[in-house]
Amino acid sequence: MNALTPAVSTGPLPASRKIHKAGAIHPQIRVPMREISVHPTAGEPPVTVYDPSGPYTDPTVETSIEKGLARLRHEWITARSDVEAYDGRHVRPEDNGFATGERLTPEFPIRNRPLRAKHGKAVTQLAYARAGIITPEMEFVAIRENLGREVLRGSKLERDGEAFGAAIPDFVTPEFVREEVARGRAIIPANINHPESEPMIIGRNFLVKINANIGNSAVTSSMAEEVEKMVWAIRWGADTVMDLSTGRNIHNIREWIVRNAPVPIGTVPLYQALEKVGGTAEDLTWKVYRDTLIEQAEQGVDYFTIHAGVRLHYIPLAVDRVTGIVSRGGSIMAKWCLHHHRESFLYEHFAEICDICRAYDVSFSLGDGLRPGSIADANDAAQFAELETLGELTKIAWAKDCQVMIEGPGHVPMHKIKQNMDKQLAVCGEAPFYTLGPLTTDIAPGYDHITSGIGAAMIGWFGTAMLCYVTPKEHLGLPDRNDVKTGVITYKIAAHAADLAKGHPAAKVRDDALSRARFEFRWEDQFNLSLDPETARSFHDQTLPKEAHKLAHFCSMCGPKFCSMRISHDIRAEAQKEGMAAMAAKYREGGDLYVPADETGAALTPLQAHERS
Amino acid sequence: MNALTPAVSTGPLPASRKIHKAGAIHPQIRVPMREISVHPTAGEPPVTVYDPSGPYTDPTVETSIEKGLARLRHEWITARSDVEAYDGRHVRPEDNGFATGERLTPEFPIRNRPLRAKHGKAVTQLAYARAGIITPEMEFVAIRENLGREVLRGSKLERDGEAFGAAIPDFVTPEFVREEVARGRAIIPANINHPESEPMIIGRNFLVKINANIGNSAVTSSMAEEVEKMVWAIRWGADTVMDLSTGRNIHNIREWIVRNAPVPIGTVPLYQALEKVGGTAEDLTWKVYRDTLIEQAEQGVDYFTIHAGVRLHYIPLAVDRVTGIVSRGGSIMAKWCLHHHRESFLYEHFAEICDICRAYDVSFSLGDGLRPGSIADANDAAQFAELETLGELTKIAWAKDCQVMIEGPGHVPMHKIKQNMDKQLAVCGEAPFYTLGPLTTDIAPGYDHITSGIGAAMIGWFGTAMLCYVTPKEHLGLPDRNDVKTGVITYKIAAHAADLAKGHPAAKVRDDALSRARFEFRWEDQFNLSLDPETARSFHDQTLPKEAHKLAHFCSMCGPKFCSMRISHDIRAEAQKEGMAAMAAKYREGGDLYVPADETGAALTPLQAHERS
Repeated sequence: MNALTPAVSTGPLPASRKIHKAGAIHPQIRVPMREISVHPTAGEPPVTVYDPSGPYTDPTVETSIEKGLARLRHEWITARSDVEAYDGRHVRPEDNGFATGERLTPEFPIRNRPLRAKHGKAVTQLAYARAGIITPEMEFVAIRENLGREVLRGSKLERDGEAFGAAIPDFVTPEFVREEVARGRAIIPANINHPESEPMIIGRNFLVKINANIGNSAVTSSMAEEVEKMVWAIRWGADTVMDLSTGRNIHNIREWIVRNAPVPIGTVPLYQALEKVGGTAEDLTWKVYRDTLIEQAEQGVDYFTIHAGVRLHYIPLAVDRVTGIVSRGGSIMAKWCLHHHRESFLYEHFAEICDICRAYDVSFSLGDGLRPGSIADANDAAQFAELETLGELTKIAWAKDCQVMIEGPGHVPMHKIKQNMDKQLAVCGEAPFYTLGPLTTDIAPGYDHITSGIGAAMIGWFGTAMLCYVTPKEHLGLPDRNDVKTGVITYKIAAHAADLAKGHPAAKVRDDALSRARFEFRWEDQFNLSLDPETARSFHDQTLPKEAHKLAHFCSMCGPKFCSMRISHDIRAEAQKEGMAAMAAKYREGGDLYVPADETGAALTPLQAHERS
Repeated sequence: MNALTPAVSTGPLPASRKIHKAGAIHPQIRVPMREISVHPTAGEPPVTVYDPSGPYTDPTVETSIEKGLARLRHEWITARSDVEAYDGRHVRPEDNGFATGERLTPEFPIRNRPLRAKHGKAVTQLAYARAGIITPEMEFVAIRENLGREVLRGSKLERDGEAFGAAIPDFVTPEFVREEVARGRAIIPANINHPESEPMIIGRNFLVKINANIGNSAVTSSMAEEVEKMVWAIRWGADTVMDLSTGRNIHNIREWIVRNAPVPIGTVPLYQALEKVGGTAEDLTWKVYRDTLIEQAEQGVDYFTIHAGVRLHYIPLAVDRVTGIVSRGGSIMAKWCLHHHRESFLYEHFAEICDICRAYDVSFSLGDGLRPGSIADANDAAQFAELETLGELTKIAWAKDCQVMIEGPGHVPMHKIKQNMDKQLAVCGEAPFYTLGPLTTDIAPGYDHITSGIGAAMIGWFGTAMLCYVTPKEHLGLPDRNDVKTGVITYKIAAHAADLAKGHPAAKVRDDALSRARFEFRWEDQFNLSLDPETARSFHDQTLPKEAHKLAHFCSMCGPKFCSMRISHDIRAEAQKEGMAAMAAKYREGGDLYVPADETGAALTPLQAHERS
């Protein structure tokens, strides 16, 4: 692959087409969705699903990695007349780890002058929301979130779920979005310098979102691979992508990623700051860090993980842990604090950081630098002390009109998960929670997408707004393309299971459509409606490879005689003859549902000694 | 592979050796465990883990599939003087689906005369328990369950968990086992004709167990494959194995499996009965079914799934479901009932079935023939009506001294899982619950080990005693060897996560040992202590293949500069110099853990406008 013209995965998913819905308040917005068609025999409408994959899955759009995506939000942003273009910071050798010559990933071919807020202006979605303004971004996400709900409108909407205090509306209006953003309960990560992004929302009263991490390291990886990983991750459903690169070429790789990303991009600016000072934590300075924030804000990074809650006096609490400090950012800051015997510069300069974020609308993702890295360390004093500080910082950021979410653990056994959610809600004023898993046991390296998928589904149900994926490589190595896909699909499962359990009004639409397809032996529909049609199809074909078998009225596990679904159809046919529907109705209306057997009575044959030879 | 001498997977897992603990009441018993050694630098004892893999992982034992395993329980059984050997039933052509010649799997080379209870005797573990007898089987499982607890004995035992009313003791005594079996709250599936089995217990107050399904079908598979799948499944941790074969050779394949199985084997006798009548549900008779029960009881099947709760008048309740009846046994019985317009023969002859089970100590696994097959059908009237009948049948079986567990769903969204457990406990008198998953969403065929692993972990936490695995092939095809392993590991994760959350006293021992290994960069120990050392190692080696890297003091994801654990060690070293432990102690004792920042005060630098160019 030529590093200058990386190829990425494009084309629609099976039986799918990209559709767009227009706005009412802002008619220029076109909200993308994926429509999955079903076989005509189903007699059902297509199923519309949430689609973060961007133009890459739209065959009507020609994408070119060297040109980047269309700057769809540019006019929305400039129309607000509160931003100004300026020359911006120039790329410096340290931004790319002093890589040179052949070792340097080229700069992105196009450079736009960055935008920032005019003096005194706040250009955050939170500021607009508080001012009562429904931005195009807000209407965009309102339409986007309503997926499937329109089908249900007019029908009797059965809400079924336990939302633990969340307030999920039957229908999402732009005004509801504005209110949720205004009160800090949801964020729309949307840096004004990332106009290529399609707005999305993160909050407890919206669909649960997932994040995929990518990024090169000193050990491995290149720009082309990382851009493809980003495109690949969103193809399978990642709602945001974090670029956690720590190696060389960190600036240029990020530029390629952002210019081609239709989803919000998050980073941990500390990683690049550390590269700039040669990897020595003690040498970090506020000046270098601040410079990095501006560098990345100008590039268009949508949210920053900032470990400002790792305070000097919390460090002793983590010293005796089984696994110490497992957050990279947290450990770097702890080392800095300890070496200098002083409070973290992130904490001391937090208000200034807010000013930067406010000028570009970079959202905060307040990092949990003291998250537990093992079951033994879950919910300990260090973790919860930091969480309280994150709550305090949230209020400061809000006072500055900055959007905020809070990062959460980590490794937590099931019985301690809810306490995390409850405490976060209590101390962080309902700012969205964004958790890594949590992993519910430590004993399965190689399967930590699963150990954490369990915890992620549960904490998503309890109220976490976005789930950061974990791949099978966690603790062992860097994820490759397959790992990224496995991680994303696992987390789509967790997020969707959470939406179902919370009682999201339309979540069940896809489950029901797939289950009807399954029951009616519409194999192709079953594949196409699934999260991963390719895998579903290939697994089926391993047992029954012939095309004709996809029309078979029996399932590939059981063979024809033992197919319960086939027999169920026979039963249904017989039942129709027998007027069973009426019988069922009678039972459901409180008829004699349950007639106990009499151990000695007529319903059982008399007891007999078993056969003796 | 020669079908007559199938090869199976043997040899110890890495760094592991088989150890045996002797009984005190019954000194002849030798309870197997797996001891995993750690690197000498750890200064820690080896970690002992539960080991259902049998002699196959013991290099000191020579196994031969044609000879079968040693009949270790034979003397325990005959010593009770309540059984008699008899000629038993002869294999009939229909037992093997009329397979002949080359298409016939050969009979197992050795035939032992079957045992049964002497007239009037009950030979079940339940009967012994009620009589106050601690059998060798009971002491065996008591020792087996105490894994790791001995290490903790004497140390201050911190119990941490939420057990939802379970009564897990600090230490399992043989008397505790007897009590739990006597009250029906646990079962020890141990057919007197399966003396090769190493006793294990299934109950809410013991470690959560997992079952793996294997079995050929009309579509695929052979004897050699199925025996290897059984050995393979227990190698990775399956506690019981169900042989769900439905094709030809069903009798002979089962014989090979049972003779070589150190774990209890379960079946669904209805499948074979249906084969005997040519696959037509309506042609089933009590006589054929009864004959099949005796056939399988004589072979040594340890538990029977019996769908006696599918009653005629419940069928209408399932007719309008999205996915009808998805249990094979349930659908077959429903069809039979409907066709004949009469009550199920399983229900009517239930007391006779009990008499058979009582004479061989076959445990009941009362089948949930009306379990939901989709999110839409979860917790519906059909499912819960059947569950009430299963509760009623439990009491009949108990009156006959038979051991009973209850099968559960299926497809259930997270918010409806606990209701299943609570209702089962209420109506089935705390008989052990044995659930399939449940799957928490329908939309991920190809990943249903994960959709169901989430539900399995949760319901295991709530009180389910055994989790029936689901493989990635669920709904799509028959599992191969890799699928079996993936399913088993996923369910070991779910079961272990449940044990941790329930507060099982020793569950955390393995997590802590692995986490310490992780923190101390003992890579080999981290692999060896994991559920799947091979996969953990190979994932690590994909990123850092060199042997020297396994001694590296940084993790393979981050590289040396960004390794949080490495930095944590630096912090710990610095902390020791600084007397941090004393500081931490002060904080933990209620010192000023949390010092809020003052937005305008000294802790933060003055707010400044961000840089303007």
